Amino acid sequence: MELQLPELPYRADHGFDGLYGLEILEMSETEVRGRVEVRDELKQPAGLVHGGVYASIAESLASLGTAFHVFADGRVAMGLANQTSFMRPITTGTVHALARRLHAGRTTWVWDVEIRDDEGRLCVVTRMTVAVRDIPGR
Amino acid sequence: MELQLPELPYRADHGFDGLYGLEILEMSETEVRGRVEVRDELKQPAGLVHGGVYASIAESLASLGTAFHVFADGRVAMGLANQTSFMRPITTGTVHALARRLHAGRTTWVWDVEIRDDEGRLCVVTRMTVAVRDIPGR
Amino acid sequence: MELQLPELPYRADHGFDGLYGLEILEMSETEVRGRVEVRDELKQPAGLVHGGVYASIAESLASLGTAFHVFADGRVAMGLANQTSFMRPITTGTVHALARRLHAGRTTWVWDVEIRDDEGRLCVVTRMTVAVRDIPGR
Amino acid sequence: MELQLPELPYRADHGFDGLYGLEILEMSETEVRGRVEVRDELKQPAGLVHGGVYASIAESLASLGTAFHVFADGRVAMGLANQTSFMRPITTGTVHALARRLHAGRTTWVWDVEIRDDEGRLCVVTRMTVAVRDIPGR
Repeated sequence: MELQLPELPYRADHGFDGLYGLEILEMSETEVRGRVEVRDELKQPAGLVHGGVYASIAESLASLGTAFHVFADGRVAMGLANQTSFMRPITTGTVHALARRLHAGRTTWVWDVEIRDDEGRLCVVTRMTVAVRDIPGR
Repeated sequence: MELQLPELPYRADHGFDGLYGLEILEMSETEVRGRVEVRDELKQPAGLVHGGVYASIAESLASLGTAFHVFADGRVAMGLANQTSFMRPITTGTVHALARRLHAGRTTWVWDVEIRDDEGRLCVVTRMTVAVRDIPGR
Repeated sequence: MELQLPELPYRADHGFDGLYGLEILEMSETEVRGRVEVRDELKQPAGLVHGGVYASIAESLASLGTAFHVFADGRVAMGLANQTSFMRPITTGTVHALARRLHAGRTTWVWDVEIRDDEGRLCVVTRMTVAVRDIPGR
Repeated sequence: MELQLPELPYRADHGFDGLYGLEILEMSETEVRGRVEVRDELKQPAGLVHGGVYASIAESLASLGTAFHVFADGRVAMGLANQTSFMRPITTGTVHALARRLHAGRTTWVWDVEIRDDEGRLCVVTRMTVAVRDIPGR
């Protein structure tokens, strides 16, 4: 079993990330950057991007950023908690997300994810806590 | 402008709720019940239902439950914060969600959402804070 | 080393729990009940009980409820995250708190804490995530 | 009625901030800096600074930073939610806190609070949501 980082930028083509349209742009040990194009299928009834889209992006960037770095040590990453605050709606253009690692502990990693609109305004912030566990049976 | 509650059960057929497949089963003033069928398109790379799906369900149930009850007073509901804790993965079957209203204030409603698997085990909990605001221009 | 449950009700007489005045009333495997008498020293400048008092009570009840039950297995409890929502202020009387265990995993316990005033109104809710770890050196 | 900013640095001498020992060092429109000296009375049973102390500091800095800036417009600040993640314990020295404003909306302000130890290591992060409301009767 091997965990291979896809060539970046990478547009998810299956699973939930594929469904809502996550594109991963950059990944370092402490930051992951991604984006999602706004389309009607991502909106809630009032015409704003659905809050769950932001939570999903944050979850994916933080989990991915953790997974790739702990996998080499025979460990896996699993989302533990996601706290998202909605400050300004996005209705059009692109959702831009930047996940920054705050803490890389033995059993828990913590990330802050900032989500901005095309004008660079801070619209949503998420704090993601990711559990790091041994791979069962290894 | 009128906000009409669809006949229940109601399967969202557009927007993000339609994309991930939310079905609303029951709605009272203090509870909203919904579900989502698990399919591969809702999963993260390890084969579990993506955390963002749970956050999305919670967001929709709580926002809907708030919106229908404040709209009569000329007010709208907007998600303010979503705190989701992941306790047990779901990989198959149906995601069952029950939103219960904890607080109905003048400017903020708070809901707890419990998500269970087909065996009734508690898998995810979300605390949703929904802002209630006057409709601009009314 | 032994962890002995004090006789209940127990009024903390040292440390931070002693400073703000936590009294533990009941403790079972899945619930812990406590209270704090309101006094001026617990208030913020506007005369309401300070939000940090509620967060402290929640933290203590959930950590205590976890610690006593995992210690027998050679494990310790450490607060990982605390999400507190303030819904209604308390200005007088007693702060009544009930912590209920939602999840008892191998590495994480999750508790919901409800805080009520003397009239039984729900004023504050906290979701506490407690990490469970092996005792170093055992 | 007038809200006067005390001369800084300011050591709270009454209320809960006085009880646990909050000192306010600096305050601008977008940042508030404070600190608390560690002493046994601030610890939980295992000898670490109690998680509630961090939540209290965050609550106070964010509420204060909001209150002083909205009061001129005849509005008051009230804590709405506090999400605190504990990453590294502090057992000695000084707790250093920096609150930074992420969002200043009409009805909600959002702050991130970072808490560090004497070595400058990030130990605790809090996201505080503060409601801004009209002063009743004005």
